[in-house]
Amino acid sequence: MENLFWLTPIGAVLGLLFALFQAFKVLKAPEGTDKMKKISASIRKGANAYLARQYKVVGIFFIVMFVILVCMAAAKMLTWFVPFAFITGGFFSGLSGFIGMKIATSANARTAHASGESLNKGLRIAFASGSVMGFTVVGLGMLDLSIWYMILRFGFHLPIAEMSAAMLTFGMGASSMALFARVGGGIFTKAADVGADLVGKVEAGIPEDDPRNPATIADNVGDNVGDVAGMGADLYESYVGSVIATIALAVSAGYGFAGAFVPMVLAALGIVVSIIGSFLVKCKDDASDKQLLGALRKGTWVAAALSAVVAFFVVKFVLVDGTANALANGTADALSITNPANMGVFVAIVSGLLAGVLIGFFTEYYTSDVYKPTQRLSDSSKTGAATVIISGIALGMSSTAIPVIIVCASVLVSYWAASGFQFTTALNMGGLYGIGISAVGMLSTLGITLATDAYGPVADNAGGIAEMSGLPANVRERTDKLDGLGNTTAATGKGFAIGSAALTALALIVSYIEEVKIKDPGFSFNLTLTNPPVLVGLFIGAMLPFLFSSLTMNAVGRAAQTIVVEVRRQFREIKGLLEGVEGVDADYQTCVTLCTKGAQREMIAPAALGIVSPIIVGLVLGVNGVVGMLAGATATGFVLAVMMSNSGGAWDNAKKYVEAGHHGGKGSDEHKATVVGDTVGDPFKDTSGPSINILIKLLSMVSIVFAGLVMSFSLIH
Amino acid sequence: MENLFWLTPIGAVLGLLFALFQAFKVLKAPEGTDKMKKISASIRKGANAYLARQYKVVGIFFIVMFVILVCMAAAKMLTWFVPFAFITGGFFSGLSGFIGMKIATSANARTAHASGESLNKGLRIAFASGSVMGFTVVGLGMLDLSIWYMILRFGFHLPIAEMSAAMLTFGMGASSMALFARVGGGIFTKAADVGADLVGKVEAGIPEDDPRNPATIADNVGDNVGDVAGMGADLYESYVGSVIATIALAVSAGYGFAGAFVPMVLAALGIVVSIIGSFLVKCKDDASDKQLLGALRKGTWVAAALSAVVAFFVVKFVLVDGTANALANGTADALSITNPANMGVFVAIVSGLLAGVLIGFFTEYYTSDVYKPTQRLSDSSKTGAATVIISGIALGMSSTAIPVIIVCASVLVSYWAASGFQFTTALNMGGLYGIGISAVGMLSTLGITLATDAYGPVADNAGGIAEMSGLPANVRERTDKLDGLGNTTAATGKGFAIGSAALTALALIVSYIEEVKIKDPGFSFNLTLTNPPVLVGLFIGAMLPFLFSSLTMNAVGRAAQTIVVEVRRQFREIKGLLEGVEGVDADYQTCVTLCTKGAQREMIAPAALGIVSPIIVGLVLGVNGVVGMLAGATATGFVLAVMMSNSGGAWDNAKKYVEAGHHGGKGSDEHKATVVGDTVGDPFKDTSGPSINILIKLLSMVSIVFAGLVMSFSLIH
Repeated sequence: MENLFWLTPIGAVLGLLFALFQAFKVLKAPEGTDKMKKISASIRKGANAYLARQYKVVGIFFIVMFVILVCMAAAKMLTWFVPFAFITGGFFSGLSGFIGMKIATSANARTAHASGESLNKGLRIAFASGSVMGFTVVGLGMLDLSIWYMILRFGFHLPIAEMSAAMLTFGMGASSMALFARVGGGIFTKAADVGADLVGKVEAGIPEDDPRNPATIADNVGDNVGDVAGMGADLYESYVGSVIATIALAVSAGYGFAGAFVPMVLAALGIVVSIIGSFLVKCKDDASDKQLLGALRKGTWVAAALSAVVAFFVVKFVLVDGTANALANGTADALSITNPANMGVFVAIVSGLLAGVLIGFFTEYYTSDVYKPTQRLSDSSKTGAATVIISGIALGMSSTAIPVIIVCASVLVSYWAASGFQFTTALNMGGLYGIGISAVGMLSTLGITLATDAYGPVADNAGGIAEMSGLPANVRERTDKLDGLGNTTAATGKGFAIGSAALTALALIVSYIEEVKIKDPGFSFNLTLTNPPVLVGLFIGAMLPFLFSSLTMNAVGRAAQTIVVEVRRQFREIKGLLEGVEGVDADYQTCVTLCTKGAQREMIAPAALGIVSPIIVGLVLGVNGVVGMLAGATATGFVLAVMMSNSGGAWDNAKKYVEAGHHGGKGSDEHKATVVGDTVGDPFKDTSGPSINILIKLLSMVSIVFAGLVMSFSLIH
Repeated sequence: MENLFWLTPIGAVLGLLFALFQAFKVLKAPEGTDKMKKISASIRKGANAYLARQYKVVGIFFIVMFVILVCMAAAKMLTWFVPFAFITGGFFSGLSGFIGMKIATSANARTAHASGESLNKGLRIAFASGSVMGFTVVGLGMLDLSIWYMILRFGFHLPIAEMSAAMLTFGMGASSMALFARVGGGIFTKAADVGADLVGKVEAGIPEDDPRNPATIADNVGDNVGDVAGMGADLYESYVGSVIATIALAVSAGYGFAGAFVPMVLAALGIVVSIIGSFLVKCKDDASDKQLLGALRKGTWVAAALSAVVAFFVVKFVLVDGTANALANGTADALSITNPANMGVFVAIVSGLLAGVLIGFFTEYYTSDVYKPTQRLSDSSKTGAATVIISGIALGMSSTAIPVIIVCASVLVSYWAASGFQFTTALNMGGLYGIGISAVGMLSTLGITLATDAYGPVADNAGGIAEMSGLPANVRERTDKLDGLGNTTAATGKGFAIGSAALTALALIVSYIEEVKIKDPGFSFNLTLTNPPVLVGLFIGAMLPFLFSSLTMNAVGRAAQTIVVEVRRQFREIKGLLEGVEGVDADYQTCVTLCTKGAQREMIAPAALGIVSPIIVGLVLGVNGVVGMLAGATATGFVLAVMMSNSGGAWDNAKKYVEAGHHGGKGSDEHKATVVGDTVGDPFKDTSGPSINILIKLLSMVSIVFAGLVMSFSLIH
């Protein structure tokens, strides 16, 4: 049975090779005119400068945390593997972001140039760049997991339960890195965007991406650091976290080795089906918006369908037959098998896959201007900015209902099916394993899902470069099409990210309880909802996403303020800039530096909140309170993240809808009202909303790592 | 011991007599000039028309529900008392609102006239009017409770446990009435306000409360229906609900009669100390804003301090000595006493009182322009409306932390103290009783707290009448002062209402579990947080306040739209109206009618959500899922309500701060940006935010009433 393990590193290597192949495809394409090269180089330079600084700050954090973890290990509150697992989790997550950014900033000009040849070529380059990100994330994720598996199992001969407990903690490294990437990147991108818009578009009246705007390069850099590196790190963490949490649950569910290998094999084969799916993404040159979306959808949906087929055989042969054979043959593994496996686990996987697809679809429904909600939102611009804001917030709030119901249905179906198609009054660990594996199912096609998502910023940048370097109108038209598609995939990607984060967080909460049981099998829980520490934890958990969002939104506000001041200064002091005199260039670099500094400074407080809260809550309320906090933060965080992402997405598209000529078009009062909505939506959808995903996972991860401390020193037991 | 009961009807009658006394004081004051009388009569007429229509719609709802409850009683899912208790709860709650509105609409012109004489006289009249509302609510609340006590105990000789179970259900009547009053009133007031502002202030450029604006009477009517009737009904429900829930918990805690009488006696004596406190509210004629606030604070704080003193003796003599004597003397009651009472219950009461005062203070801190947060918010107007919105939302979100911590501390301290100053792993029912009694403690001074709150709309109306009838500038100045004070008390009142609603809801959740146990003592709960039905319930509960808020906000938007159209029509069609030609009057009545119709139509959907959700969730997820839903809705609803109320309050005051001459003052771009904030804040703070309070209590109440149905027919057990 343990030979099945080798599928995981093989899948990882296949994923990385495919990423490399796609990277070559991108890099061998021509970069276009000198002007395009120059702009692309500026963006690359800004992105590198940002990353260099970010890794410095994050490096300090990792060193400090490493020392703390070493001290805790010395005090026997942790095993010695934890500090090292923490470091590798952070390292691989950071590396994924780095590679994704490198290729995205190399692909933007190439996409613009290829769009000059044909729409399909543009799409292929941009999607290849997204694929590099997608397959790097899944490849490195499974590689990290494989390496630790080999060290802990083959090197130290740890039992599966202890191995998964140790491995869970590398999730904390990945989570921390993801939080810094998402929050820092989110602040950077929106400070640049808001700053550029407020002075450039609103005050000076020049169009978006106009080269006269000193913040325009920073804006393009921001698309990469926020949406590529941030999103990649977020999903890296969900991906690896859900697999390890499910391995941990396999042990508690009494499935032995077989149960532990199902998530690993599923993830490995998921990489293969994602590769197959990505070959299907292509379009005709006169493709409509709908056909373009169809091209991407074909890839992801085929991959999802193949993944479901694969899952059937994995559950049948690995889990059901595997446990039956082990029991029949009395192998070494047979001792740890206490639960008859059933095909309900397959149903759980399918429910996860389906939930991912459905959440993506409904996100699109609420945020795309081809559907009623966003069209009605743009109607409200007739009565001014205030009604646009009210309607947009109401839209976001009402859009939370369906994703919540989808996730709830998926949780219930997974639990019910994996419990052997029944509900029992006592908690069924096999059912909880089902919830974990449904998250793995949802994420099994991450390679291609993330590719379609990371494609967006590249297309967005390509549009910017086409505008700034004055490419012909038909090229702009094509890059606009690609960019519009990117907005849609960005929205569905956000829905997918939050849905998978919620399922992963639920699996992590259960893992936390298992972790406490491993540390002290006699620990007496009272997780009843009416137990006051649980209830109080729940209230605090419900409040944390709000407090966190206020920190990140204010951070964007403050960072944007410095950009506003700087852009105004350049317009005032650089003679001829606003008039567009030949040879007079804006000082782009200063804006990039200001954004970088602002992002680094402002990401400290939200990150600290995520790390310190579970420790303080734990030390006061004890383990029961921590579980309450995690549940409260996950439930409320999920709802708030969906609301903020969808309000933001809808405002953005309502503005585009007006710009497309409805309600008076560009320059009308209606347009101005929607611009206010779009500006409010920027931090909603690109900073606060998606950061909440990471917050809820980070809270669980920190709780798991500091469980020993809390168990020893909490005020209330 | 049972003789102590008589204190409750005595307290109720004292409260009602005091209300009557204050009403005479108001009514004997002169109403001013003919013009003032005419305006006041218009407002009164509008308010009456609204109430008449509201009671018609609500009447139909009550008849339908009554029939459903009778059918359920016939099917033995309920006792026969429930349908009648439901009706009386609704009747008394509605009656409180009716009386409060009557007196408020009679006091507005009188306050304006009295302000012509002196500031103190104006304050005294407005406060007397508020007192009528405050003491009517507490008086009728305790009267309703007393009547049912007499019927069930003296008439039917029910044991306390069954009596409290039956009485809990009149909370559903009160909750439904409160929801209709709050949501309907909230929609009315904000539709009128937003409609009046959008066309009058923004488009036509005429000042607020200008008699040329056709929506101005509707705006003044709205202040009364939303803030007087709505707030009164909300707190009526918390007040009665917390007392009855605590009686129910007394039985489970094993305190016997004594434990049941503590909340009743405390509430009765709370009426007396509130009367004492209200005699202290007066001011000098040259009082500053701070001194005016001091006058109101003196009254409430002295009442709170007296209530703490009274609580000490109540706990000592009624609970501790009472149970000890019963056990020593072996009275009939002794059999039901299984728990040694302790003075920790007193600590719980004080923690509730303190929490109420502290939440009020911090609400003021976050929303008043004399403190940093609102001043910083007004700074953000320099960069336009978008940054005002972003900062305001961030302010509201960050303002949730302290109230959550206050409520959590109060819950923990109450539980710990009432458990005998200890935390135990097993749930301590005495501790849960402590949480209930802390809610009663917080609400014990409701008479005067609500008086200061209901004072606000009267002062606001008085200001409007002074403006419309052209009273001298010094009178306007005084009514402005009184109005400004009203804004502060409205904000603190909202904080108090949501804090007490959260504590009451927690007590109701525990009562729900006790109710299930009474129906089926062998019912097997699994309320562990990780039980999927609980978890799924939690997610759905967390989503409900968001969905509910989106319904109420959209309702305001739609209703306001009809007002916008109507006001524009009148400006266009009534010749000479905008020019202010003598003898040309706006058609105020049409706007009132439109608001009324809009409010009635739009309040159906949110009310249905509150009533149907717990039934559907119960039928699918069972009792465990219902508890999860209630906990999720209470935690998230509390946080969301605080956020929306505080964002709205801060936007309102940031605008006033700019109008007072900061950042360019009235008419500047900064001012326009803050007007957008204020308009967004209107439905936040006066419709959606405060309605959430009622939603979370209504969900609990409906769950309690339909517990039998859910236990019999749920899909998952």
